[in-house]
Amino acid sequence: MSDPDCLFCNIVAGNIPSTKVYEDDETYAFMDIAPAAEGHTVVVPKTHTKDVLEADPAVYASTAKAAQAVARRAVDVLQADGVNVLNNCGPAAWQTVFHLHFHVIPRYTDKSKDSLTLPWVPHPGDLDAIRAIGEKLAF
Amino acid sequence: MSDPDCLFCNIVAGNIPSTKVYEDDETYAFMDIAPAAEGHTVVVPKTHTKDVLEADPAVYASTAKAAQAVARRAVDVLQADGVNVLNNCGPAAWQTVFHLHFHVIPRYTDKSKDSLTLPWVPHPGDLDAIRAIGEKLAF
Ligand SMILES: [Zn+2]
Ligand SMILES: [Zn+2]
Repeated sequence: MSDPDCLFCNIVAGNIPSTKVYEDDETYAFMDIAPAAEGHTVVVPKTHTKDVLEADPAVYASTAKAAQAVARRAVDVLQADGVNVLNNCGPAAWQTVFHLHFHVIPRYTDKSKDSLTLPWVPHPGDLDAIRAIGEKLAF
Repeated sequence: MSDPDCLFCNIVAGNIPSTKVYEDDETYAFMDIAPAAEGHTVVVPKTHTKDVLEADPAVYASTAKAAQAVARRAVDVLQADGVNVLNNCGPAAWQTVFHLHFHVIPRYTDKSKDSLTLPWVPHPGDLDAIRAIGEKLAF
């Protein structure tokens, strides 16, 4: 299914041009035109689905698998020093296009190729509070 | 396979205590003890594998699928406003434990529960340079 008002559906359909990196029956990957680092690629399922909450688990898994293939290739071809695979869901989590996507962002110690900053600084939390939340979350 | 020197292998084995959120034959999820936001969970394959570059694609996909289940549950139970699913590979990409893992980070507009900052500010890149890199990356 395709949403005529969705940017990524239109990219998948070829109505909006993109630089294709990868494609299979279920998945399409293309260059981000506002890259956070050299080689920044976006990986999407071809069928419209909004986010990790809505996606069929098989679609989520196949999109992640394609993201892995793109990550491997990017590190290999671009001789990157690392890579992030990031899926954002909801405006509160920085999602701006509401068609499920994984960002694959090759990373470089050479900061001329890499504009990312650490999204959080880990510091020890309150263990009792963490355990209490974990008990609520547990399946 | 398990690596006796690996923190997450020891958590999976129960040698190091953790607050378990989810477990199946292949996957284990537990609370991060240095959470970036309320409900921050770490999802790992039970077998040791270093990162997205080394992981068997089936293992990567099953770990992503478990991360999706945890993300859905966290948003539901904690009434989060969004969620990030993040996989870091290599020190240049903020990986600190070298056993493949997905961070599942529920996100809140209430900043008392959420310490994350935007890792990059998107701004338009050089389209010719992006196309040239895309041609190198293309499968
Ligand atoms: Zn769409
Ligand atoms: Zn391990």
